[in-house]
Amino acid sequence: MAEGGTAPRRVALGPGAEFDLIRRFLAGEGKLPEGVLVGPGDDATVLEGGWVLSTDLSVEDVHFRRAWLSDTEIGYRAAAAALSDLAAMAARPLGVLVSLALPPEGGADPEAVHAGIREAAAAAGAVVLGGDVSRSPGPLVVDVVVVGRTQAPALRAGAEPGDEVWVTGSLGAAAAAVRLWTAGKDPAAELRRAFARPTPRIAEALRLAELGVLHALVDLSDGLAGDAGHLAAAGGVEIVLEASRVPVSGAAGEALGEEGALEAALHGGEDYELCLVAPAGSLRGDELGVPLTRVGRVEPGDGVWLDGGDGVPRRLARGGYSHVADAGGPEP
Amino acid sequence: MAEGGTAPRRVALGPGAEFDLIRRFLAGEGKLPEGVLVGPGDDATVLEGGWVLSTDLSVEDVHFRRAWLSDTEIGYRAAAAALSDLAAMAARPLGVLVSLALPPEGGADPEAVHAGIREAAAAAGAVVLGGDVSRSPGPLVVDVVVVGRTQAPALRAGAEPGDEVWVTGSLGAAAAAVRLWTAGKDPAAELRRAFARPTPRIAEALRLAELGVLHALVDLSDGLAGDAGHLAAAGGVEIVLEASRVPVSGAAGEALGEEGALEAALHGGEDYELCLVAPAGSLRGDELGVPLTRVGRVEPGDGVWLDGGDGVPRRLARGGYSHVADAGGPEP
Repeated sequence: MAEGGTAPRRVALGPGAEFDLIRRFLAGEGKLPEGVLVGPGDDATVLEGGWVLSTDLSVEDVHFRRAWLSDTEIGYRAAAAALSDLAAMAARPLGVLVSLALPPEGGADPEAVHAGIREAAAAAGAVVLGGDVSRSPGPLVVDVVVVGRTQAPALRAGAEPGDEVWVTGSLGAAAAAVRLWTAGKDPAAELRRAFARPTPRIAEALRLAELGVLHALVDLSDGLAGDAGHLAAAGGVEIVLEASRVPVSGAAGEALGEEGALEAALHGGEDYELCLVAPAGSLRGDELGVPLTRVGRVEPGDGVWLDGGDGVPRRLARGGYSHVADAGGPEP
Repeated sequence: MAEGGTAPRRVALGPGAEFDLIRRFLAGEGKLPEGVLVGPGDDATVLEGGWVLSTDLSVEDVHFRRAWLSDTEIGYRAAAAALSDLAAMAARPLGVLVSLALPPEGGADPEAVHAGIREAAAAAGAVVLGGDVSRSPGPLVVDVVVVGRTQAPALRAGAEPGDEVWVTGSLGAAAAAVRLWTAGKDPAAELRRAFARPTPRIAEALRLAELGVLHALVDLSDGLAGDAGHLAAAGGVEIVLEASRVPVSGAAGEALGEEGALEAALHGGEDYELCLVAPAGSLRGDELGVPLTRVGRVEPGDGVWLDGGDGVPRRLARGGYSHVADAGGPEP
């Protein structure tokens, strides 16, 4: 996007309790302030000059448990999840601001948490620019604000009928780890790592932007079904996913079975892979150093549909994990 | 500051446990990323183009108690405190990003909290641009990221021997309210309001910047002693405060006595007034629509000193409230 070359925009959010709440919060707001190019509803805010901002909250016993992760991994994961919002905009990370609420003695070691944040930031080319520190009366809380830059942000809106839907990497491994932990089992190293040290797809997003093929882009934090729902809602289109094409993690398949792993890929979340919409025929799948898989297509209509192979797609309810709906015990 | 006209800078922080921790967090960082004009240690980050960012965390039972404030006031106060960091940079607020961790059923009403945030933002000319929402296993957590803009940010560094130190408004009322609540008493309406609905001094900061008199500026969140300590450290100078000149809140004086109210003004925090350094003789005190009081002077040396009237200043230990030191029960 050339500076000032695009009208300020709001973006429609997909379905889900979390997004209903966010929609209500934003309902009263009028037009965007001067200099703000992209406002509520996308993965991040875009300011004149190409600055891209987003904030991402990680709360103990909601997004993670200390029994599952080392303190360094808690920090790494919180920062990686936040940085993934910059990947979702095809923006280059420059800095992070970190707010920490620290539990009393015996809770997480703040220096280890911060070391993990710094490590994830450095891996993405960013440094810690500032933040805030406080005590917490209970849970460890990590809020990471990411600051990136791009002259051509990739947005959620832009999918057109006839386009193809692609994802990077493989899906479902992080959710499989959580399901195993929750069931009292130890996940395999590959599953554990997917949850503990996700890799925001920064380089891949920048490469895709360079190729000029991005009609729409989102990162996968709430499961493919939910996040594709954002692309469908923002573009005013229908997305049809083909079940047989979804690149389900092999390790997730071993742990959960084929059906369970597909369910984790669609509704589990926390993969931090990219889901992109590109013109038909514009990608081969070998453009990145990581797998790039065509998983579906864009059609006129609305919502996200799954084609199980019989040619009769069924509409996917948004079943991604909700960080606000109270579905019993804490789960990430 | 003209765009790109100032070398990137780091700023020395004053003494205190909270700042020791922040200093350690930042110690490993190298030079600032391209396009970042002001980095760690000031009230906010400044980006090329004049964008100003800061993040401020409010945690239940650390920064506030639900018994003290309505849910709307909790939101208002969290946003006002964050917006005060833009006042401290003499930046005009444009937007906020809000992260909320929401307690289970029976906790704070998220819509009321958010209404308070929106109200404080609107009062400062800002809108909600985005954010994140999550459940909390316990305390309500509100993190407010503020986005403002200025072509001439006022920094903490810049005080020179011979300059005068001034503050806006009156000090100690918010801290007096907290002391009364903590002692099981009800604060007077004026004290309560100072804590529940602080007014970030945006218009006043912009006016002072317009006047061209700001050698250095900070907002008062940790008490005059602590925040003047940041100005002294950043400028490499000594600040001498005159006890008789400190504009102690009359209502705080009635509640705590003269000495207690002075102590609240110096070490209590949460006033969200401005403390500025200006050339001697450049201000009369009637430039703003609110009181503007000369409270001290800048000298060669270091630290913050208090002149009790006998002409023999004593060094003030930083006794401002620390949000990380564990001093027993929760207090804001």
